[in-house]
Amino acid sequence: MRILEERILREGKNLGHGILKVDSFINHQVDPLLMDLCGREFARRFQHISATKVLTAEISGIAPALTTAFHLGLPVVYARKQKPITMPDQVFLTLTPSHTKGRTVELIVSPEYLAGGEKVLIIDDFLATGATILGLVRLAQTAGAQIVGIGALIEKTFEGGRAALAHLDVPVEALAIITAMEDNRITFRETE
Amino acid sequence: MRILEERILREGKNLGHGILKVDSFINHQVDPLLMDLCGREFARRFQHISATKVLTAEISGIAPALTTAFHLGLPVVYARKQKPITMPDQVFLTLTPSHTKGRTVELIVSPEYLAGGEKVLIIDDFLATGATILGLVRLAQTAGAQIVGIGALIEKTFEGGRAALAHLDVPVEALAIITAMEDNRITFRETE
Repeated sequence: MRILEERILREGKNLGHGILKVDSFINHQVDPLLMDLCGREFARRFQHISATKVLTAEISGIAPALTTAFHLGLPVVYARKQKPITMPDQVFLTLTPSHTKGRTVELIVSPEYLAGGEKVLIIDDFLATGATILGLVRLAQTAGAQIVGIGALIEKTFEGGRAALAHLDVPVEALAIITAMEDNRITFRETE
Repeated sequence: MRILEERILREGKNLGHGILKVDSFINHQVDPLLMDLCGREFARRFQHISATKVLTAEISGIAPALTTAFHLGLPVVYARKQKPITMPDQVFLTLTPSHTKGRTVELIVSPEYLAGGEKVLIIDDFLATGATILGLVRLAQTAGAQIVGIGALIEKTFEGGRAALAHLDVPVEALAIITAMEDNRITFRETE
């Protein structure tokens, strides 16, 4: 998606070690117009999969998941990293490593909002190693739900996430696909 | 805002001790269409204040702040509760008590995205004691920014937040104003 790639080139910062800082429009400050366009594009790419719910992880997945769900006319559930007091005692919980936090984090979903029979579209900000998305997959599958698609704003192909998701045999869409981050450069896969 | 009040009556759960569970459409599962309507209504109520940025706190403030910012055509910044590795060493940080977590949490904003001269509209999900919103006010003021308005989806008048914000002398808008939560009832202030 050209407009997202251009924004990454203009404002993204390659911090080294594969870390891309996009805090000025996705991860701390958010550009709502860009997020709306991204949600619209995800909705277009996933309109054929008949999802019944969008699932994401707090925190940075919320904005693109919300706009995608808006354009698909679906509810969105964000997995919590801490169990709030409003959640029932019995929950779906999985552990997932966080590279940017350097430790394991919990992903928690209430059975009230993720049920057997749901067809789940997972949306997140990054597809890197795929660890967070695989955590969401485990939560959905434990709930008896079916994964029908996976979307990320930005994929870093050199971290192998797409291969880690291949066994799911569902469409995986990324709006900006980064193939290399060497020196201070950011290289995208050519798209038509 | 009638549609929000009706949804609270239909799906909200009074858990006692003043805790209102709205996890089915705001705080865990989110209804994007409702959030869009709420954002549109905030934009209407705050269109005259000439805000330059919307500020909220992760996590539950993100959805209404994003849709409000969308309809005002502004960027939104969400204060982080943990400093990510992409943030510079020098940040704005304040401590605020969290009732639902039972402890003090940090609110952190990078000086990159909150600067002197900004006119800040604060949007959050709840206005209860006002503690979180006052934390956001301190962050903005430390940055040299000016608070020009405060909006919350749901106000619980019996927790005194509006009085705690009165010294700021800015418009405070809530889309659903709850005056009492006794027994299993939820009572709204009559609005025209």
